[in-house]
Amino acid sequence: MRENMKKYIVEFIGTFFLVLTVLCCSIAGQSFAPLAISGVLATMIYAGGHISGGHYNPAVSFACCIRGALPFKQFIPYTISQVLGGIVAILIFYLLIEKIQSFEPVNFNLLPLFVAELLFTFALCYVVLLTATKKETAGNSYFGLAIGLTVLVGAITVGGIFCAGAFNPAVAFSIGIVNAISWKLVCITILANLLGGALAALSYKITNIES
Amino acid sequence: MRENMKKYIVEFIGTFFLVLTVLCCSIAGQSFAPLAISGVLATMIYAGGHISGGHYNPAVSFACCIRGALPFKQFIPYTISQVLGGIVAILIFYLLIEKIQSFEPVNFNLLPLFVAELLFTFALCYVVLLTATKKETAGNSYFGLAIGLTVLVGAITVGGIFCAGAFNPAVAFSIGIVNAISWKLVCITILANLLGGALAALSYKITNIES
Amino acid sequence: MRENMKKYIVEFIGTFFLVLTVLCCSIAGQSFAPLAISGVLATMIYAGGHISGGHYNPAVSFACCIRGALPFKQFIPYTISQVLGGIVAILIFYLLIEKIQSFEPVNFNLLPLFVAELLFTFALCYVVLLTATKKETAGNSYFGLAIGLTVLVGAITVGGIFCAGAFNPAVAFSIGIVNAISWKLVCITILANLLGGALAALSYKITNIES
Amino acid sequence: MRENMKKYIVEFIGTFFLVLTVLCCSIAGQSFAPLAISGVLATMIYAGGHISGGHYNPAVSFACCIRGALPFKQFIPYTISQVLGGIVAILIFYLLIEKIQSFEPVNFNLLPLFVAELLFTFALCYVVLLTATKKETAGNSYFGLAIGLTVLVGAITVGGIFCAGAFNPAVAFSIGIVNAISWKLVCITILANLLGGALAALSYKITNIES
Repeated sequence: MRENMKKYIVEFIGTFFLVLTVLCCSIAGQSFAPLAISGVLATMIYAGGHISGGHYNPAVSFACCIRGALPFKQFIPYTISQVLGGIVAILIFYLLIEKIQSFEPVNFNLLPLFVAELLFTFALCYVVLLTATKKETAGNSYFGLAIGLTVLVGAITVGGIFCAGAFNPAVAFSIGIVNAISWKLVCITILANLLGGALAALSYKITNIES
Repeated sequence: MRENMKKYIVEFIGTFFLVLTVLCCSIAGQSFAPLAISGVLATMIYAGGHISGGHYNPAVSFACCIRGALPFKQFIPYTISQVLGGIVAILIFYLLIEKIQSFEPVNFNLLPLFVAELLFTFALCYVVLLTATKKETAGNSYFGLAIGLTVLVGAITVGGIFCAGAFNPAVAFSIGIVNAISWKLVCITILANLLGGALAALSYKITNIES
Repeated sequence: MRENMKKYIVEFIGTFFLVLTVLCCSIAGQSFAPLAISGVLATMIYAGGHISGGHYNPAVSFACCIRGALPFKQFIPYTISQVLGGIVAILIFYLLIEKIQSFEPVNFNLLPLFVAELLFTFALCYVVLLTATKKETAGNSYFGLAIGLTVLVGAITVGGIFCAGAFNPAVAFSIGIVNAISWKLVCITILANLLGGALAALSYKITNIES
Repeated sequence: MRENMKKYIVEFIGTFFLVLTVLCCSIAGQSFAPLAISGVLATMIYAGGHISGGHYNPAVSFACCIRGALPFKQFIPYTISQVLGGIVAILIFYLLIEKIQSFEPVNFNLLPLFVAELLFTFALCYVVLLTATKKETAGNSYFGLAIGLTVLVGAITVGGIFCAGAFNPAVAFSIGIVNAISWKLVCITILANLLGGALAALSYKITNIES
């Protein structure tokens, strides 16, 4: 199999488990949801990081492209793999709960939603770029933990309060499909996520490039 | 003592503490049960990984056999050591609670149980193979944390909801003995666990072999 | 850009997210607040440690100056960057909650507040110096986790009970601005934090210097 | 200062914070107590491990002596340092709560208490010996996390249910002084802890010595 296809499979598997965890946690007001969601991201990053980079998130892939850690032509196939993982997770979720359940959409105010999604996607991508794509931190064993903790923090502090706590366009798209938030909010979330990723890449360059 | 016997002792000790933790957490509706169960697995993997591989789970041993990280002739003695650890844990559990308590069996629907046990045993074995048996990730310090997190996620998101959350035939067998689920569900759980391990080994090969 | 300015930016970003997390957690009696606050500290330390040292705390910068890990002339610019991060976090917090909310100040007894802030800032700086500035522990992957855990422990055991649980003059100053504690308590907290940092540097020297 | 005195200071500091955390968590039925207690142990082990070994526990020192990782003549001074740390923690605890409070002693049945304390002190020492004193695992970054997790698991699964959850003679002695359990139970706990440590050293030798 071609090397690239291996990367897409790893991105598919990781995003599948990420979205499945988000959906399963949502049905029971699970208080440990932030632990589960950050935990599944951390473990999938540790498992697949050496193959695909372990993004599982188009905003992370976007930030990696800008920073130069992923070729731009890989952005679309990475994103497709991630979105497909989310869609299959939705199908499995409906199979688990044995019905097609439409969520009661939660509403959020637009400005706080945009700011909160932007800030914590920035934090997520900033941590990814500094701990997982840099010569100075190469070979460390903390990258997955550090990245997972960023999502833990965002999920606890702003998730469900100011925004859906996606910090990830593939997650935002998936919770749009199950109707957990409106498509308008999905679109604003995705824009905020991609902008957060771009700003993180910018921060990386500002604090890194020799001058 | 023969080298192999040392491995069996380590597998016995680790599975003993894993099953004891599962049983003790079950008696008080302990809300931190997912933390305890994933924590004991992680710490026992860190302790014994360099001796036996730190499986404590016949599905993991099965996946390691298929992937080529454990000789097939070791599968039976590994499984026996693990099941014996579970049985001794049951005896100690009854000694601790000072009576032989038969649990009220919990019921689950067959299809969700099978799917949930299969998926998260797949995730567990996938993470084991990629973080603990691979040249590219050798020498890392995160393997135990990553593997433990997989069980944390499964326990929070599907354990007790769609399935018993065993992800491990030795655990499934042990909770069958104490009557926490019916033997029919034990058998389906074990089948799902072994199939999940086999699929993880397949995924490992697909995303790994040079082509 | 000058190398030093990169450090200040990293200190600004890390302290910004630390204070934002503290503020967001405070508005909803969030039970997972200790996890979020220690988590954001750990992840920002892992991200920025190799650039600025990852202090995000004037007491830590002070301890590093005494120990010799940071030039004394950097103490003021580090502190300014950290305090600015806190102030911008307050502005963003008000933007998120869409109003300027004055907190009902919490009161604490002076002696317990001073002792608790001193002890846990000592622990925090002691762990920083031993895990992140020492030849014997160089290259480890646990420094961020260890430092974050210190704040987790302080937040659970004394935070909100005997003191505000700042362990950090920049955090104390920020919660003074939003009126969560009185300025008198802010000043005592900052004094205790700096004294804790100084004692940690002393402990470092006592247990380290060749004799 | 003599090298040995540095070790005693580090053991004193670590045990001080461990016992202070145990006492502070006990006054408010703090639900996160297991996280705080295991967290403070992990962080102190990471901080002081390279100086004193990071025992903070006479049962661990005893196991290390039997295994050959600590000279037997160091057992008494290590234990004295640890017990002194516990006593000073009690004084500071009374200063924090601003009175001398005698606890209502909790009672436990003797056999379960003995078995539970023995088993989890065994697990603790087994993990210490395998992750922190062995050539095969030298240089890892997980030893503090692994050891802390053992206490997390014990505290959740048996602590407060079958026993006080000390797993440590210095902790048992300290909670005896504040009258949280009777001196009879303190003595049985200490015996179980030391026996657990001895059995862990035996397990280490059985699974390790070249044959």
